[in-house]
Amino acid sequence: MTDAALSLAQALDRIRAVVGPAGIITDDADMAPYLAEWRGRFKGKSPAVVRPANTQEVADVVRICAAAQIPIVPQGGNTGLVGGSIPYEEGREIVLSLSRMNKIRHIDPLDYSMTVDAGVVLKTAQEAAEAADRLLPMSLGAEGTCHIGGLISTNAGGMAVLRYGVMRDLVLGLEVVLPDGRIWNGLRSLRKNNTGYDLKHLFIGAEGTLGIVTGAVVKLFPRPRQVETAFVAVPSPGAAIELLARLRAASGDAVTAFELMSDVCVAFALKHVAGSVNPLSEPSPWYVLTELSAGTHSDSFRESFEEALAAAFEEELATDAAIMSSQAQAQQMWFLREAIVEAQKFEGGSIKNDVSVAVSKVAEFIDRAVAAVEGACPGIRPTIFGHVGDGNIHFNLSQPEGTDTAAYLARWDEICDVVNEVILDMDGSISAEHGVGRFKKDEMPKIKSAVEFDLLQRIKAVFDPEGLLNPGKMLP
Amino acid sequence: MTDAALSLAQALDRIRAVVGPAGIITDDADMAPYLAEWRGRFKGKSPAVVRPANTQEVADVVRICAAAQIPIVPQGGNTGLVGGSIPYEEGREIVLSLSRMNKIRHIDPLDYSMTVDAGVVLKTAQEAAEAADRLLPMSLGAEGTCHIGGLISTNAGGMAVLRYGVMRDLVLGLEVVLPDGRIWNGLRSLRKNNTGYDLKHLFIGAEGTLGIVTGAVVKLFPRPRQVETAFVAVPSPGAAIELLARLRAASGDAVTAFELMSDVCVAFALKHVAGSVNPLSEPSPWYVLTELSAGTHSDSFRESFEEALAAAFEEELATDAAIMSSQAQAQQMWFLREAIVEAQKFEGGSIKNDVSVAVSKVAEFIDRAVAAVEGACPGIRPTIFGHVGDGNIHFNLSQPEGTDTAAYLARWDEICDVVNEVILDMDGSISAEHGVGRFKKDEMPKIKSAVEFDLLQRIKAVFDPEGLLNPGKMLP
Repeated sequence: MTDAALSLAQALDRIRAVVGPAGIITDDADMAPYLAEWRGRFKGKSPAVVRPANTQEVADVVRICAAAQIPIVPQGGNTGLVGGSIPYEEGREIVLSLSRMNKIRHIDPLDYSMTVDAGVVLKTAQEAAEAADRLLPMSLGAEGTCHIGGLISTNAGGMAVLRYGVMRDLVLGLEVVLPDGRIWNGLRSLRKNNTGYDLKHLFIGAEGTLGIVTGAVVKLFPRPRQVETAFVAVPSPGAAIELLARLRAASGDAVTAFELMSDVCVAFALKHVAGSVNPLSEPSPWYVLTELSAGTHSDSFRESFEEALAAAFEEELATDAAIMSSQAQAQQMWFLREAIVEAQKFEGGSIKNDVSVAVSKVAEFIDRAVAAVEGACPGIRPTIFGHVGDGNIHFNLSQPEGTDTAAYLARWDEICDVVNEVILDMDGSISAEHGVGRFKKDEMPKIKSAVEFDLLQRIKAVFDPEGLLNPGKMLP
Repeated sequence: MTDAALSLAQALDRIRAVVGPAGIITDDADMAPYLAEWRGRFKGKSPAVVRPANTQEVADVVRICAAAQIPIVPQGGNTGLVGGSIPYEEGREIVLSLSRMNKIRHIDPLDYSMTVDAGVVLKTAQEAAEAADRLLPMSLGAEGTCHIGGLISTNAGGMAVLRYGVMRDLVLGLEVVLPDGRIWNGLRSLRKNNTGYDLKHLFIGAEGTLGIVTGAVVKLFPRPRQVETAFVAVPSPGAAIELLARLRAASGDAVTAFELMSDVCVAFALKHVAGSVNPLSEPSPWYVLTELSAGTHSDSFRESFEEALAAAFEEELATDAAIMSSQAQAQQMWFLREAIVEAQKFEGGSIKNDVSVAVSKVAEFIDRAVAAVEGACPGIRPTIFGHVGDGNIHFNLSQPEGTDTAAYLARWDEICDVVNEVILDMDGSISAEHGVGRFKKDEMPKIKSAVEFDLLQRIKAVFDPEGLLNPGKMLP
């Protein structure tokens, strides 16, 4: 299939013939949004951004690139945080954007499923599900921009994992263009299928290094009819985890969100983000924002929530709580949670870790990691929050007050290594939901056993022996 | 690593030195239970049944076998239906039974997880979870015998898939001995971990052809506190599927079982199995056994179930229903459902298909498949039941009355092909939960696209280039 004589210019001509003038961008200014991560940490160059209109065009483009040995960076909504969708600076790779493949192919309310192009924006898919009286439970900050294909390729997490799982758990079927241009049609809506290795799980979370996801069948769910939100003061992360276990048991697994926040986080939000309000009057070292959802509306649902919280007070797992009195108050609670993300930048440099451990080990991790980073950098200000219902902690570290930001940020790798050492000792993950991309690929040989690293490399070699699909991402 | 000079006898001596006399069986009578499938359809021969006591012993045995080029058949509780755990008649393969690895390593109620040896019997694991006030939701007929490792290697389904998923969905971490004797330690309890391809999903459902599962971390759930069971007369499979969709929506996804049965099935059970009772007085062409579970006890839960059924009557989705008046009556309903399995053997030969389609296509599949098999074999008696909440139909076919059983069963492959043709045309699966094993391996090139079959073979070659792990299973 290789055609060494095919020059870049010839290949681009052939690609243009496949996708038409609307499907290829080569002007530098027009390419710019595709060549930089939105936070500005990763930038790259490319001879062309190619935007195929359908799966066959993707396959044709990939085949031409394979023949000309042109590497490809698949790109969804480009909302990632680890540079997985950005080409390198050398400018050898084309960017293959799925943004024109944005059709909802089919909604099947009886099957509780939806078949979509990879380039459908999450928000669009959520709204289409809602119009069919169904819930697409994936939800995260970038939902107005990110694509279903990107969510699949990065195995996105977000706000509803506790009840509905990560993106991997929501995928029933996939359509994928392989690195040699063949199309794998695994676009089936089967809840059960035991005939051979489950290929879809290899492509999910592979960051586009094994194939290009072009379509998917995703699960839908009944829409919740009653949502109760509470903001709870808890004495410690250990109490929070115990409270979570009890709420899950008492509610019959109705807990759909459980977000932990330290007092530092809440203080930053109240100080820097207009509109932030603490629903509780007394200070507490830790807070939990929790949400319980029910499929039907009943007074008893809220009553049993209140009873469970009352029981938690008696056992000193919680010291205060505000249960929403209105939808507006619930929104205010979520506003505070989201303000934490924004507020950190007003406190100087922030070194960020997106880590996970077993849910029962969250408290131990926080204790150990705080002690470790305080030892490495006295005065450092841990800004700890996250989806602890999934064992996922955003262990962010603001610089000591009154110190130099550049000097602090220069210690990024060193400080992260201190955190990662604790994580690895506790069988945790150094990238819970953000992935590896360019950002953490060099960590992979360190965090994986020799056996696992070998298997990862061999799987890559089976699917993409020429290394043309998203090279230098995920694996070094 | 290969040591061609190592004879079988020498290899067995080395294996004996690893596992001790208690860990190896070579006597024909003692080996017999390990060499036949319980239904008697598959039988094989073996020089030895090896029963290691721990993961290191498994690894050592596998390494010796690799050196001597001895193929290995991994075996759990040996309750499979497709011959996946039975060696071939040539007698070259040893059987590696996990039955001595039966320790529950750790229960973590706060983490809602449990770490077990592969050889732990499902029932034992269920009871241990219950003692910790947690639910291990996997449940199936063989639960008193089957092993967790076998459930993982076959990606078992069972009775609770609708709410809790298949075995794949319940696995958080795995420990696997690879075909070269290396141990992959993926035994972590992480709800989120986005660092590299997800290896565990390759081993789950691989029927022991890529590695030997020696341990697992599985998810636990809150125990339900209220279970309401109903037996419902429905006019058609289409009405049943519509009823399911409405019950899911009305109950907030509380439907934990939804089993469809044709009148023929129920008649067979009532006729042949003592103790079978139809809870409804009027005949119906189809019945549904459904179960809704709640985490807390409330009168309103049952009331809303009753209201949903009443609404179904009005829309002619159901014509009659009995909601359990006691635990005893619920058990009677389940007894009838289980009696269907046993009753078929009293009606002569039964050709069995374990198939799945999208949930919304169940009615169309039944219509088309019944017409197709009646065309091929006039008088054939479809005995249709199954977990249709998962799109999984046990499409069994009893012989025409008054015909010869042997002649009928001789048409097994031909009749199955008729069913499979409909399945494949509808993007379904010819083996929803029972797997491939020896039984359906020759179907694989027919049911898979050329692309998919190629990828399956290449994955097998990466993990097991010598083809020593469960050869001739799953892939031809």
